[in-house]
Amino acid sequence: MPKISSLAVAPRTEAVHTEAARGCVQVLYSAVRNETLKRASPLSPEDQCLQSMPDASPSKWHLAHTTWFFETMLLRPHLSGYRPFDERYAYLFNSYYEALGSRLPRAQRGLLSRPALDEIHAYRRHVDKNMAELIEQSPPLLWHTLQPLIMLGLHHEQQHQELLLTDIVHALWCNPTRPAYQSPASAQHQKADIPAKQWLGFAGGLVPIGHEADGEDLFAFDNEMPRHNVLLHPYRLCRRLVTCGEYAEFIADGGYRRPQLWLSDGWATVQQQGWQAPLYWSRSNDAHGTQEQWRVYGQHGCLPMNASEPVRNLSFYEAAAYAEWADARLPTEFEWEAAASHPNIDQLYGHAWQWTRSSYDPYPGFRPTPGATGEYNGKFMVGQMVLRGSSLATPSGHARATYRNFFPPAARWQFAGLRLAKDGQQ
Amino acid sequence: MPKISSLAVAPRTEAVHTEAARGCVQVLYSAVRNETLKRASPLSPEDQCLQSMPDASPSKWHLAHTTWFFETMLLRPHLSGYRPFDERYAYLFNSYYEALGSRLPRAQRGLLSRPALDEIHAYRRHVDKNMAELIEQSPPLLWHTLQPLIMLGLHHEQQHQELLLTDIVHALWCNPTRPAYQSPASAQHQKADIPAKQWLGFAGGLVPIGHEADGEDLFAFDNEMPRHNVLLHPYRLCRRLVTCGEYAEFIADGGYRRPQLWLSDGWATVQQQGWQAPLYWSRSNDAHGTQEQWRVYGQHGCLPMNASEPVRNLSFYEAAAYAEWADARLPTEFEWEAAASHPNIDQLYGHAWQWTRSSYDPYPGFRPTPGATGEYNGKFMVGQMVLRGSSLATPSGHARATYRNFFPPAARWQFAGLRLAKDGQQ
Amino acid sequence: MPKISSLAVAPRTEAVHTEAARGCVQVLYSAVRNETLKRASPLSPEDQCLQSMPDASPSKWHLAHTTWFFETMLLRPHLSGYRPFDERYAYLFNSYYEALGSRLPRAQRGLLSRPALDEIHAYRRHVDKNMAELIEQSPPLLWHTLQPLIMLGLHHEQQHQELLLTDIVHALWCNPTRPAYQSPASAQHQKADIPAKQWLGFAGGLVPIGHEADGEDLFAFDNEMPRHNVLLHPYRLCRRLVTCGEYAEFIADGGYRRPQLWLSDGWATVQQQGWQAPLYWSRSNDAHGTQEQWRVYGQHGCLPMNASEPVRNLSFYEAAAYAEWADARLPTEFEWEAAASHPNIDQLYGHAWQWTRSSYDPYPGFRPTPGATGEYNGKFMVGQMVLRGSSLATPSGHARATYRNFFPPAARWQFAGLRLAKDGQQ
Amino acid sequence: MPKISSLAVAPRTEAVHTEAARGCVQVLYSAVRNETLKRASPLSPEDQCLQSMPDASPSKWHLAHTTWFFETMLLRPHLSGYRPFDERYAYLFNSYYEALGSRLPRAQRGLLSRPALDEIHAYRRHVDKNMAELIEQSPPLLWHTLQPLIMLGLHHEQQHQELLLTDIVHALWCNPTRPAYQSPASAQHQKADIPAKQWLGFAGGLVPIGHEADGEDLFAFDNEMPRHNVLLHPYRLCRRLVTCGEYAEFIADGGYRRPQLWLSDGWATVQQQGWQAPLYWSRSNDAHGTQEQWRVYGQHGCLPMNASEPVRNLSFYEAAAYAEWADARLPTEFEWEAAASHPNIDQLYGHAWQWTRSSYDPYPGFRPTPGATGEYNGKFMVGQMVLRGSSLATPSGHARATYRNFFPPAARWQFAGLRLAKDGQQ
Repeated sequence: MPKISSLAVAPRTEAVHTEAARGCVQVLYSAVRNETLKRASPLSPEDQCLQSMPDASPSKWHLAHTTWFFETMLLRPHLSGYRPFDERYAYLFNSYYEALGSRLPRAQRGLLSRPALDEIHAYRRHVDKNMAELIEQSPPLLWHTLQPLIMLGLHHEQQHQELLLTDIVHALWCNPTRPAYQSPASAQHQKADIPAKQWLGFAGGLVPIGHEADGEDLFAFDNEMPRHNVLLHPYRLCRRLVTCGEYAEFIADGGYRRPQLWLSDGWATVQQQGWQAPLYWSRSNDAHGTQEQWRVYGQHGCLPMNASEPVRNLSFYEAAAYAEWADARLPTEFEWEAAASHPNIDQLYGHAWQWTRSSYDPYPGFRPTPGATGEYNGKFMVGQMVLRGSSLATPSGHARATYRNFFPPAARWQFAGLRLAKDGQQ
Repeated sequence: MPKISSLAVAPRTEAVHTEAARGCVQVLYSAVRNETLKRASPLSPEDQCLQSMPDASPSKWHLAHTTWFFETMLLRPHLSGYRPFDERYAYLFNSYYEALGSRLPRAQRGLLSRPALDEIHAYRRHVDKNMAELIEQSPPLLWHTLQPLIMLGLHHEQQHQELLLTDIVHALWCNPTRPAYQSPASAQHQKADIPAKQWLGFAGGLVPIGHEADGEDLFAFDNEMPRHNVLLHPYRLCRRLVTCGEYAEFIADGGYRRPQLWLSDGWATVQQQGWQAPLYWSRSNDAHGTQEQWRVYGQHGCLPMNASEPVRNLSFYEAAAYAEWADARLPTEFEWEAAASHPNIDQLYGHAWQWTRSSYDPYPGFRPTPGATGEYNGKFMVGQMVLRGSSLATPSGHARATYRNFFPPAARWQFAGLRLAKDGQQ
Repeated sequence: MPKISSLAVAPRTEAVHTEAARGCVQVLYSAVRNETLKRASPLSPEDQCLQSMPDASPSKWHLAHTTWFFETMLLRPHLSGYRPFDERYAYLFNSYYEALGSRLPRAQRGLLSRPALDEIHAYRRHVDKNMAELIEQSPPLLWHTLQPLIMLGLHHEQQHQELLLTDIVHALWCNPTRPAYQSPASAQHQKADIPAKQWLGFAGGLVPIGHEADGEDLFAFDNEMPRHNVLLHPYRLCRRLVTCGEYAEFIADGGYRRPQLWLSDGWATVQQQGWQAPLYWSRSNDAHGTQEQWRVYGQHGCLPMNASEPVRNLSFYEAAAYAEWADARLPTEFEWEAAASHPNIDQLYGHAWQWTRSSYDPYPGFRPTPGATGEYNGKFMVGQMVLRGSSLATPSGHARATYRNFFPPAARWQFAGLRLAKDGQQ
Repeated sequence: MPKISSLAVAPRTEAVHTEAARGCVQVLYSAVRNETLKRASPLSPEDQCLQSMPDASPSKWHLAHTTWFFETMLLRPHLSGYRPFDERYAYLFNSYYEALGSRLPRAQRGLLSRPALDEIHAYRRHVDKNMAELIEQSPPLLWHTLQPLIMLGLHHEQQHQELLLTDIVHALWCNPTRPAYQSPASAQHQKADIPAKQWLGFAGGLVPIGHEADGEDLFAFDNEMPRHNVLLHPYRLCRRLVTCGEYAEFIADGGYRRPQLWLSDGWATVQQQGWQAPLYWSRSNDAHGTQEQWRVYGQHGCLPMNASEPVRNLSFYEAAAYAEWADARLPTEFEWEAAASHPNIDQLYGHAWQWTRSSYDPYPGFRPTPGATGEYNGKFMVGQMVLRGSSLATPSGHARATYRNFFPPAARWQFAGLRLAKDGQQ
């Protein structure tokens, strides 16, 4: 199977008109769409209806919204004779596209017991069938337009695969019985060796940042462009992420009770929310009832803290306070990206998103793509912080060095941790 | 089948020790428990998980909580060797009993995708089986204690049958597709003759109010006692309830725009909430697009307003404003109760709860029953208004003339309407 | 000087047309108006601008609003050629009269640095001068209409005299330096003898309640009418109010930590607000640093608790919980009124308003007076509890046995305490 | 008189020990302190007590807090024998310094009728007298430490001079009578010539940004350092600010009704707050009652909109939406700073703060100064946007090209406007 992030090369070659290219897209399409269903498969219809906070969405809604994206961006405008599955879905499953009309208020997504899960599954099949037809039969000229949109739809769906997982983990954690998304048996809960805590030095200077728009390589979102030079000053990055064990020391040293370690908004949040540890951490007594041990909730339920694992489910505020306590700082997103090609750097991808010290501002020369897809990224460029890397919930093939994830600084339900940085190459 | 409200006679006769009495209770128990399941039967597991506002509860929670009541009040203390179905349910399904420990915050009941509906059904069967054993085998002396508690549990379950219906109607109404709880086909939507709008006169004087504690008749809640005399002044009551058609005239006459018709808190609520009609009313254009017609949502979905039906889903504030507009007033709960025996009065029961002008205060000499069941009624005696009668959602046999229903004055999701009163017998 | 509460007799005699009657009203008018200024006199212009919560109003606003009442109800409609002091005041100083147009939102009264206090004083003089002319020169026929309105205005002003005091005490208490409204020197902080805790028995039966509308005696508000019979059951009332010392025992016995003592709304409020004692109570260590003593803030600042003084600044919830703890209950407003004529009852007036177990419902046959003054009382008849008696802040001559004060059950900034009751005459 | 922003040169020369240097600081000190009083002088004690929202502070609080800064940072630690004016002020007038203990919650500053304004004036005199002694008599070695702190205190006070004005303008605007801070007579409301709308081109490249820490020139805050190079891409800046007339066209063109012009958070704010124009704009009919004209409230009251004046009292969201509408963008703070030396650029200072497209992130290598003064800037570096330039409320001598002002993106009560930018030098 082709790797999703590498397929975008196809449209720009002459081979794009061949049946092979269409087939390749169809294989990718099926693979991505199946992965979404696979992620929902451990969940009951009731589970898939849950919305535990306005920021999160029910699994079922993710199933439907990603389908709506293909129906709205591809089938309605481009497949002649297409009959929408249900006209009401345009309202129910639009997320935030102002150009596409009004929509269900975000906080009410958890009230959608209807359409039932079976109907959503039927909706997916309906759209998949029509997408197959569109992929196979669209005229060559139109295909130039369609293929990038399909790729956008697939990367969009992959983003929702990660959200489906982080959202349902939060929802199940809200249940006092703390059910697990997957049985612990399926967790590979081995005590991994901790990579050495080693500093890698970087000379800085003018470095290229962002994705090459017309390069013959990977797919990228518009917010990763244009590629441009940035001047960096000498710096060091930690080879690996901060671990749970290290973070527990921060807590034990009064990290959540010392305002001078915190940004002002962070300290206000600590007090208002009563934060005392990362989102899913809790304490229990050991067999002798005296010593307290941390337990950490996750997709496999509530397990004893693994000191060598990267810490996760932190807000930006907590990441910044930890860095301050550790006499270090968070890297900028540019330092992170420039360091990503270092041969010795560990845990870039697949462990935890890494908060950076960079606000989510537009790159020089950034312009959103025209039309509804232009709302994808650009309109969120205020009040958010950039995260780099990827997490254990990120679908395979979705991560890359130029990827800019972003969340508000108080968000904790993502699998987000941190990597330390310092000034000076040595 | 014996009528539930009349069974309470049994314990006070000598026949109480006989097998017949126990059998009678068992028949009642099964009938009431089945009715609850029947009310949930049109609903999918997803539907039964919905909580549309903190005041309302998921259907599944009602199924479990009513079961918890029997487990907690009867089986745990009184059935030797009883093994609770799941120890965690004590926390999950306690509603508001402080004496019984902490509980899931009310607003989080909608997050209980687990236990799954199947488990709740198994819980019900487990408790029903053990209850059958308790009913059949408890020693005669204990039976004196148990029977009133079982009757309380059944009347409690009937109250939740009504809530199950009003709560799910609200939840489904929140869905933009406005699904119906039951298909309109099953609704007997006939244009009933409107009973004449006629005033019945009452002389007042000293009238007995409340339920006879040691009388040999019906079951009653503690808040209906002690029976006592109240002095009434001459008054008139309307023979029937206010209709939708009459209420539509109030709206058309600017009822929701004239502060002088409203109590101060009511007017503030109208403005804050933007009320323009009863909860489930909406307007649509007719075929010619000019004239607007009211549509009313209910258990059978959204149907054209039936002008002759009693108006429902009003707050106390709206009921009081309507009465002011109609140059009348709401009756006190005492006037209502004294009039309930008038041979010509219509629509007392089974149409709509009737807001009264009486705050929910304790009767002279009222003392809550000792123990946890004492929290049933007494602790809510502030900030609520009394409603009398019963609604179309009230289970058969549950209503009686001394029954005191109560809700906060702004509540609108109950099937509550009004009956007009005036001073003076003539 | 005539007593304000007795002057209302005048209009109903033939003597009403005489100069003497007008003179009598003028003397009363001046006395009441001066008392308001006297109450504000210890306060700086800055103090008089304070609004510490939406429920309370700045002193300056009270000075202006009471003046607005005379301007709006008397001078504008009835004094020919009257020129309003400032047309904008109609908006600024209307409290809640919907019939009189829009008004400054209540929560913004504290933003009125302008008009300056001097201007408000000038406004008072302007209205007083014109009122003197109206009182002296109105035609005899008109005088019949005017005198009741003037009396209403004066009683209205007396109510605001009490509010001025309770509001400023709250505002000054919010200041971390806890300044005193009056120097402690002016407080007669003597250790009064505590009246004996004695129960007075009452037989009940049919008792007359409320004020005689056309009787030749005192002024009364419309909510005290019509006078009507109420059937009471035998009861006992405590001869005196609950003391601070007794209330401190309730606290020491865990009163604020035992949910079973509280009404449901009360317990929710205790938890949400973190209540641990009456509003103005705080604890400090004694000289040895070990034993804690209560201190109580009031108009004379923060002083050691006087165990023999009536407890004050309670909510209805706290009063009801205390009564429950004391194995007693609160009296109904009818029991209180019927007992007020008992020769041995103490502390009826001048110590603390006494929460009753009666919701603020209309009397049988109650109709608000027509026009704007009809908004005075009737529209607040929901969601409030009745208090009887009067407090140390009530102006002289304002209290009477039929007086119905009312506040929401959670209100604590009034000088409100309680008197215990029990069922049964013996 | 020496210019405040240039005095910082002194400490770094040998002349620092001379009496002349001390005298120079004393002259500056007096001038800045007097300016604060002058800004409060049009206000009554009542005006100076007003707090119209949690973000704003009473004038009196500004008078006291700036004085507290000198007392806390200079007099307490460094003037031997200093007796604090009032120990309670440490709590009352600390703004946000966690290192200096607890403080009055921000939202309660408006409740400080006491200490009275006279006492605050006495506090200022007390501190000024002691500061004079400290300036005159501190040992030479200590003087090295003191002078930078005194300069910080003076620049701090100048910031509060601007806030005093913006806060009181907001508070007076909240008064329905819309009083003016200064009489319109004192406003020079001339119809100024509008500078031409001309684009100035910049080549970009590596440009130095920030303040030279050890340079022998101006004072700067720590957030302006360290000076470092930034790579800029070619760009254009508008020679002047956007005018009220231009902004009115944006409104007329539906600017506040078109979501596609807005950032997502901005559009949500527009809808929640009902924004339809800048903060202080209102519409009125002209003499013929037909045409609507904008009026703009400001320090001179409510005046007809002057189309040629820079628009002010915008949020970042509005500035960004306007730029989008105008087919342009906001400049980054670096573009602004690099352009500030262009000989033809107009309206850099003294008209309106200029929102930039830069989030308030730390400069590379930034470290807060140690101790309490380290809380001055660094802890606010999240969730805020940078503004450059200065406004008509900024005190003389306070502005400079490297100055980084910052506010949350929704803030509108500052005198903030915008300057347009575009990509490409031509």
